[in-house]
Amino acid sequence: MAFSRSTRMRWVVGRVMVGSFVIAPIPAQRGRNVHHPVCCIQQDPGRVYHAGGGWIMVKQRLTFLADFVEALTRRKRGDEDATRTALARPPLERATVACAVLMGRIGDAARVAVADQALSAYGDLEDGDRLEFFRTLRDAYGVDADRIRQAYAAWDAAPDAAGVARLFGAVEPRRQTLLRRLNLAPGATLRLVRMREHLLEAIRQDPALAPIDEDFAHLFASWFNRGFLTMRRIDWNSPAAVLEKLMAYESVHRMAGWDDLKRRLADGDRRLYAFFHPATGDEPLIFVEVALTRGIPDAIAPILTAPHDRDPAPADTAVFYSINNSLAGLKGVSFGNFLIKQVVAVLSAELPQLRCFVTLSPVPGFARWLGAQDDPRMTALAGALSRGDWQADPGLVESLRPEVEAVAARYILNAKARGDQPADPVARFHLGNGASAHRLNWPADLAPSGLRGAHGLMINYLYELDAIEARHEAFIRDGTVAHGPQLAEARAR
Amino acid sequence: MAFSRSTRMRWVVGRVMVGSFVIAPIPAQRGRNVHHPVCCIQQDPGRVYHAGGGWIMVKQRLTFLADFVEALTRRKRGDEDATRTALARPPLERATVACAVLMGRIGDAARVAVADQALSAYGDLEDGDRLEFFRTLRDAYGVDADRIRQAYAAWDAAPDAAGVARLFGAVEPRRQTLLRRLNLAPGATLRLVRMREHLLEAIRQDPALAPIDEDFAHLFASWFNRGFLTMRRIDWNSPAAVLEKLMAYESVHRMAGWDDLKRRLADGDRRLYAFFHPATGDEPLIFVEVALTRGIPDAIAPILTAPHDRDPAPADTAVFYSINNSLAGLKGVSFGNFLIKQVVAVLSAELPQLRCFVTLSPVPGFARWLGAQDDPRMTALAGALSRGDWQADPGLVESLRPEVEAVAARYILNAKARGDQPADPVARFHLGNGASAHRLNWPADLAPSGLRGAHGLMINYLYELDAIEARHEAFIRDGTVAHGPQLAEARAR
Amino acid sequence: MAFSRSTRMRWVVGRVMVGSFVIAPIPAQRGRNVHHPVCCIQQDPGRVYHAGGGWIMVKQRLTFLADFVEALTRRKRGDEDATRTALARPPLERATVACAVLMGRIGDAARVAVADQALSAYGDLEDGDRLEFFRTLRDAYGVDADRIRQAYAAWDAAPDAAGVARLFGAVEPRRQTLLRRLNLAPGATLRLVRMREHLLEAIRQDPALAPIDEDFAHLFASWFNRGFLTMRRIDWNSPAAVLEKLMAYESVHRMAGWDDLKRRLADGDRRLYAFFHPATGDEPLIFVEVALTRGIPDAIAPILTAPHDRDPAPADTAVFYSINNSLAGLKGVSFGNFLIKQVVAVLSAELPQLRCFVTLSPVPGFARWLGAQDDPRMTALAGALSRGDWQADPGLVESLRPEVEAVAARYILNAKARGDQPADPVARFHLGNGASAHRLNWPADLAPSGLRGAHGLMINYLYELDAIEARHEAFIRDGTVAHGPQLAEARAR
Amino acid sequence: MAFSRSTRMRWVVGRVMVGSFVIAPIPAQRGRNVHHPVCCIQQDPGRVYHAGGGWIMVKQRLTFLADFVEALTRRKRGDEDATRTALARPPLERATVACAVLMGRIGDAARVAVADQALSAYGDLEDGDRLEFFRTLRDAYGVDADRIRQAYAAWDAAPDAAGVARLFGAVEPRRQTLLRRLNLAPGATLRLVRMREHLLEAIRQDPALAPIDEDFAHLFASWFNRGFLTMRRIDWNSPAAVLEKLMAYESVHRMAGWDDLKRRLADGDRRLYAFFHPATGDEPLIFVEVALTRGIPDAIAPILTAPHDRDPAPADTAVFYSINNSLAGLKGVSFGNFLIKQVVAVLSAELPQLRCFVTLSPVPGFARWLGAQDDPRMTALAGALSRGDWQADPGLVESLRPEVEAVAARYILNAKARGDQPADPVARFHLGNGASAHRLNWPADLAPSGLRGAHGLMINYLYELDAIEARHEAFIRDGTVAHGPQLAEARAR
Repeated sequence: MAFSRSTRMRWVVGRVMVGSFVIAPIPAQRGRNVHHPVCCIQQDPGRVYHAGGGWIMVKQRLTFLADFVEALTRRKRGDEDATRTALARPPLERATVACAVLMGRIGDAARVAVADQALSAYGDLEDGDRLEFFRTLRDAYGVDADRIRQAYAAWDAAPDAAGVARLFGAVEPRRQTLLRRLNLAPGATLRLVRMREHLLEAIRQDPALAPIDEDFAHLFASWFNRGFLTMRRIDWNSPAAVLEKLMAYESVHRMAGWDDLKRRLADGDRRLYAFFHPATGDEPLIFVEVALTRGIPDAIAPILTAPHDRDPAPADTAVFYSINNSLAGLKGVSFGNFLIKQVVAVLSAELPQLRCFVTLSPVPGFARWLGAQDDPRMTALAGALSRGDWQADPGLVESLRPEVEAVAARYILNAKARGDQPADPVARFHLGNGASAHRLNWPADLAPSGLRGAHGLMINYLYELDAIEARHEAFIRDGTVAHGPQLAEARAR
Repeated sequence: MAFSRSTRMRWVVGRVMVGSFVIAPIPAQRGRNVHHPVCCIQQDPGRVYHAGGGWIMVKQRLTFLADFVEALTRRKRGDEDATRTALARPPLERATVACAVLMGRIGDAARVAVADQALSAYGDLEDGDRLEFFRTLRDAYGVDADRIRQAYAAWDAAPDAAGVARLFGAVEPRRQTLLRRLNLAPGATLRLVRMREHLLEAIRQDPALAPIDEDFAHLFASWFNRGFLTMRRIDWNSPAAVLEKLMAYESVHRMAGWDDLKRRLADGDRRLYAFFHPATGDEPLIFVEVALTRGIPDAIAPILTAPHDRDPAPADTAVFYSINNSLAGLKGVSFGNFLIKQVVAVLSAELPQLRCFVTLSPVPGFARWLGAQDDPRMTALAGALSRGDWQADPGLVESLRPEVEAVAARYILNAKARGDQPADPVARFHLGNGASAHRLNWPADLAPSGLRGAHGLMINYLYELDAIEARHEAFIRDGTVAHGPQLAEARAR
Repeated sequence: MAFSRSTRMRWVVGRVMVGSFVIAPIPAQRGRNVHHPVCCIQQDPGRVYHAGGGWIMVKQRLTFLADFVEALTRRKRGDEDATRTALARPPLERATVACAVLMGRIGDAARVAVADQALSAYGDLEDGDRLEFFRTLRDAYGVDADRIRQAYAAWDAAPDAAGVARLFGAVEPRRQTLLRRLNLAPGATLRLVRMREHLLEAIRQDPALAPIDEDFAHLFASWFNRGFLTMRRIDWNSPAAVLEKLMAYESVHRMAGWDDLKRRLADGDRRLYAFFHPATGDEPLIFVEVALTRGIPDAIAPILTAPHDRDPAPADTAVFYSINNSLAGLKGVSFGNFLIKQVVAVLSAELPQLRCFVTLSPVPGFARWLGAQDDPRMTALAGALSRGDWQADPGLVESLRPEVEAVAARYILNAKARGDQPADPVARFHLGNGASAHRLNWPADLAPSGLRGAHGLMINYLYELDAIEARHEAFIRDGTVAHGPQLAEARAR
Repeated sequence: MAFSRSTRMRWVVGRVMVGSFVIAPIPAQRGRNVHHPVCCIQQDPGRVYHAGGGWIMVKQRLTFLADFVEALTRRKRGDEDATRTALARPPLERATVACAVLMGRIGDAARVAVADQALSAYGDLEDGDRLEFFRTLRDAYGVDADRIRQAYAAWDAAPDAAGVARLFGAVEPRRQTLLRRLNLAPGATLRLVRMREHLLEAIRQDPALAPIDEDFAHLFASWFNRGFLTMRRIDWNSPAAVLEKLMAYESVHRMAGWDDLKRRLADGDRRLYAFFHPATGDEPLIFVEVALTRGIPDAIAPILTAPHDRDPAPADTAVFYSINNSLAGLKGVSFGNFLIKQVVAVLSAELPQLRCFVTLSPVPGFARWLGAQDDPRMTALAGALSRGDWQADPGLVESLRPEVEAVAARYILNAKARGDQPADPVARFHLGNGASAHRLNWPADLAPSGLRGAHGLMINYLYELDAIEARHEAFIRDGTVAHGPQLAEARAR
């Protein structure tokens, strides 16, 4: 397994007519310390192919490689058949090779083409192959253990900032470089977001893939920095291609079609704002739907079915009635907080008569939590609510309401999940933003999803600009849940 | 110096009326391991203020702190005097405190305001204070040594990907988080680029600041990924604000004013393309000026003084006669390669009659190199050229030319700087891009800068699409300098 | 009915507290020659109100007038009740008064507001009142007969260009000035187009209104000059508000909804181009739908139901399969010709492989014409086609086709309407544009509209750039109908 | 001179090989009534060529005609020499023939090309030829006298609206059709505005051309309807091409260059607004320069030389200190009124603290008027002011000021030009807009132009929204000049 410099110099890039190879990850080996690894291939069958910080054994025929790389890096005149043959190789092979080439010392402009090929090949992968690809990412694009050890030893001996910088360079997985280079391709950012979406699914099947996600998360936090985002209002003059995406991404209160969408965009008393990123173009990363109302609404149906284009002049309240994160691949990259606060600022400037900024939010964890309680009072209520006969019986609703409110107030104010956080995810989000749990509304959402998740309960979270920072701080510091008098009273029942 | 959780809980953010403090970096201490450091202040004077991974001693009165933070994080009604007082503190204090607050657990939206304050305060710093600020960045925003040691030990015991991820988290200097958070402010990206420009100057005075630059470079490589850039053609219909920047940034062949600029933008036979980044708006990051000519030009003056708006139809050659990087703070973030190749693609599509893409480039290192040679032949030539009498003497020019070409060919083909790279920086750039040193032109630039740097010599580097990748590879691999027949012949003299 | 200058000086505009009036047209009177008529009112009831070139008798209480005019021309502080009362008057009164005020000597900026009120009031008219309004336009905004007579006499005595200019001034109906002033209001142009649409309907009820339309047509020809139009491609990234209009305006091959629309906008092998006018904003005045195909299509269904996003590369033909004028109020203002030719130019540049530009057009007059023929051969064919049993019987179709083609060729080539023009309106349009009737296709459109209008017949009209001008000329000069060999042969049967 | 249908059928358009002709206007002839005149040519030399409503005699060789028309209407393959020859004919010939062809029955799309040729040929005319061209416009594109007589007789017999419409059709000079067709060409509108500029110059030489201008004025009033204009703010981010035009067009207070311009566009306390028309693109038709100040300024120099970018917050006054009409060819098409009022509206909304909208205007007619007075008091003052020694002598200024103000107040309030209008053109404009002559400022403009025109005097005209309409009305009706107390008092001296 000796690997002389001279053989290393035989570049893969369109030069060497390679014999018979396979690319596969092998465990990192001690004792080797390649600081500037290159993408190369040895001429003799059975030898090694080196990509990134790990070694890759050569097992299988890869006669196509030279042509493929040729196809990746330039348009070769007069030899289009070879190119076509290369591009017809299985996508996993193509994706793996293209990534390896991308880490080599090819020219910058060639990298754009190779990255594009790598992402195209990735896009053609079946589920099983994706798992395989992610394992390659994990095993072949990690770190060089020897390099870490040396850098650590040096830093430990003289722990200054320069030593930290060297150690940092050794510890950063080569995946990050790979992802940055993949990001050179046109449209790459969105394709990498989709890749992470697949990865998150894959981690559910194979938790050992989780470390890869740290690199995605780390890069996405930089790439999707709030300073790079632009907020745009979406209305009926927006491109149909964008509106179509909104319909697809809306999952809080689904839209029935274009008419439904048009109502939510009505110029008069509706607003919709979204964040966009320059590298993902017309993809709305997150969006919030707003209704302008007189008073704080206590049910969702009147908002969703209101007549078009009512005059916003009498409105004194802006209701955030639906907030959606569009891309699962951006999990953990937080935008919602910024969006809500920027919308509050924009609406305040445009409509100074607005006095109150409030949500009308689902309580997605309520029904499950209630069903899981042992307390007889809870059990009784859960039973009564599950029967569903109350929906058509105003008298029954009136009699149940005090108990529903009492129990719901406990759920919001007291029920905790991991880390002393509120059990309800929507509550976590708004309370963490510095909002107050202002009012319980029951019944407020009789749609199937609303009944299933929360027996029809909804909550208004109130955003009071003067109090947001103090509430955020109290929530983070002490877990204090800011709330309105109705909840306080209901909890006391 | 004990530090209980309860005292740590006294938040700085607008709550605690702090007594008397000063903020200063002290060396990181062994044995402490604060995984989630917070921004806090102790009530008792003389105690400590904790910011980031290092400790900050409290020495001086900082009664303004609470008000300042208040001012940073929200608009407090009815207490504008206090705010004003806080904002009147010296900029170094404001910048330091704002950075500390930014690393605390304040709300996301508050972070936008605090980041803005930090950058404004930074913008007010004098040179001396900047050095101080950078030292704080180095010392107070580094790493937690204990955390590194623990993470290393864990990984060393079981070197898997998860361990690498934890180690990576410990080794990443807190500066990177700080910079990412500063980047939340409006217009922050450009302000951070300016900050790095200052830093690079500061490093010249104090090389011990160099490690900070690694963090800037690391983040900028992500932020200014080629995928986020857009190329725009600049012409006489572009905003005056952009054109004014071009005039300021053009340093290869300076512009005399708006008329000069207008000539370089003439619709007919001139083009100017620039890269822009969405977060730096109308700032041209790099730009290239192109002349469309018939044949490869051998002097710069005819290009700079050509009459306006000549018909591009007879042109067969696109000449890249000036390439400028605008922002010193983006040093090392490479765009030029991408720009040239994209311009070649755009021009090829627009004007299919173009057969040749070539530069007319300065040779900035030639005169200095020649002056430093011991060889009597070189010394003689340097003397003859320095006299300058040849400029007005065509006969003398003719007699000198063979020798100038012979020596210049040696300079381009043989002279090396560190790392076996060509000695000439412009040659390094174009050869590294896969271009060929096509032709020496002497005399080609009689402007003072051209005489001073290269005795009037200029070079055409040729970009041949079919050969770019192979030349790039040969240059990187073997240091092969692709060149035209004229240089080969001249070297042989 | 004497009318002294002093009473004429009592302006209506916000000054005179008028008594009791009504505004109604009375016949123009001989002997009066008011060259600069003003908008005025007399103080005494029963006197006259003068607006424009005709006289208006005062019969009815108009106490609201001063307030109304006040409301029209400025926002009067502290008297909003009076304004509200004025604006609550019946729309016909408001429209009539606002037009009268508009012709007075009010300031230019006030005119914008008055024009807006006039158009708003017009927008509130019921059908019957519209007729009344148009009669006022005809009778009160015509010419001053005495002025015409004097100008004519002067010109007749010395027929020079200056005399013509004066005569022109006298003969131009004051309606044109009124319409130009109405056009000052925001969005006025589109509202005037709608007004003409109503007018064309009204003329069907009352042909005596026809002269008004000459003034609309005259002005619209200036306003909608081709030089003011811009062509835009519409695709799935166009604003939903525009796309919705396309769906509403498409009348040749109706769209079933957004999915249907999306298919017609598919990036691959579909195009849609429209003309827009700056003053009517996002209103597509005319649009053409194009399919890119291989070969000339002989039926419409494969085009309307084709799968999405096919590759345009193999296409050699651009098929204009639907051309729609959107606004009935722009009748007679011709755009279609310009649009088709500009689309041909754009597509030729974008897709040089296109060799053939052709329509697939309905033959809307064929069935009616055929049913009206006496010739037994025609009668027999009409009967056979009307039974409709052929649609499901390929054998019957084959046996009927020669006869359908023979008769259809006669219809296209020989049947004439008024003025020796082809009887078929679509044929008139394309032949007048210089196209050739290239091929009959039967059956090509089995949709109800296609069967009803043309028994399923469609025609390809061919646009050959080299021949367009000669064909246009021959068609205009001699009525020559350019046609393909299939029609020649079919006619001979 | 008989003219049979068959000869009329020999079209000029690229078909007939004409012999020898000349095109020249001859007087309209009685007894001929060609309702649909066509563009044609007779085969035999010496015969007539018919273009428009008049006849054109054929005198000279025009063998080039067929080729020229060919060149105009289509790109004829393989015969580029003939085309080139035709296009090399003298511009007057080309312009005349192209106009004639344009009035013929050529296709719409061909008209675009012919109109373009006509305007290009016009653009090549020398001054003398322009006069000739305008005479052709006057004589050959007028009316058909017989047609007028018949239409008049018919209307006189039965004077209804339909008769008026027919008479209108007969009286409209064919020039208007010609101009509308010329307007089909790309960029035609601006070229026609330039043509009218030439025409206005030509009329000064030859007043008999004046009737043509009525047609231009009539069409431009339609084309440049205020509803088609858009107002844009111009700032330092506007295209350099637009800014360059502003510098060229500014004639009230000339700009010294780009720095001067930049100061006038400073974001802080300067604004510049212009009207644009969609058909003239980036041509600012009229623009107003605004300074935001504290208090009403009494001199121009402090405004023109103010430091950059002052904070607009303390400003309470918007000063319109320069209003420029850009295009002489749009004389009489009034925009200024609309522009000022729209700017007032925009600024009021953006900066609610503005309380006062006022001009600082030149008094261009003052010095000339003063010099022409006989009154010894006036003569004395004119003498004192003309000496100019007061400029450097504050004491002399103080002593002269009461008299200057007294006389200037008389000039503004009492001096009248034709039609009882104020003698001063700037006063006419602002008073007609409903402004008040608020304050005399002397000395306020010591620039050469200010001294020459008004001995350094400037005036503030005040725009008070509540009073504009009443002042406009009083000015139009009674010639009342609204004015401030200073003028009243000064006049009484």
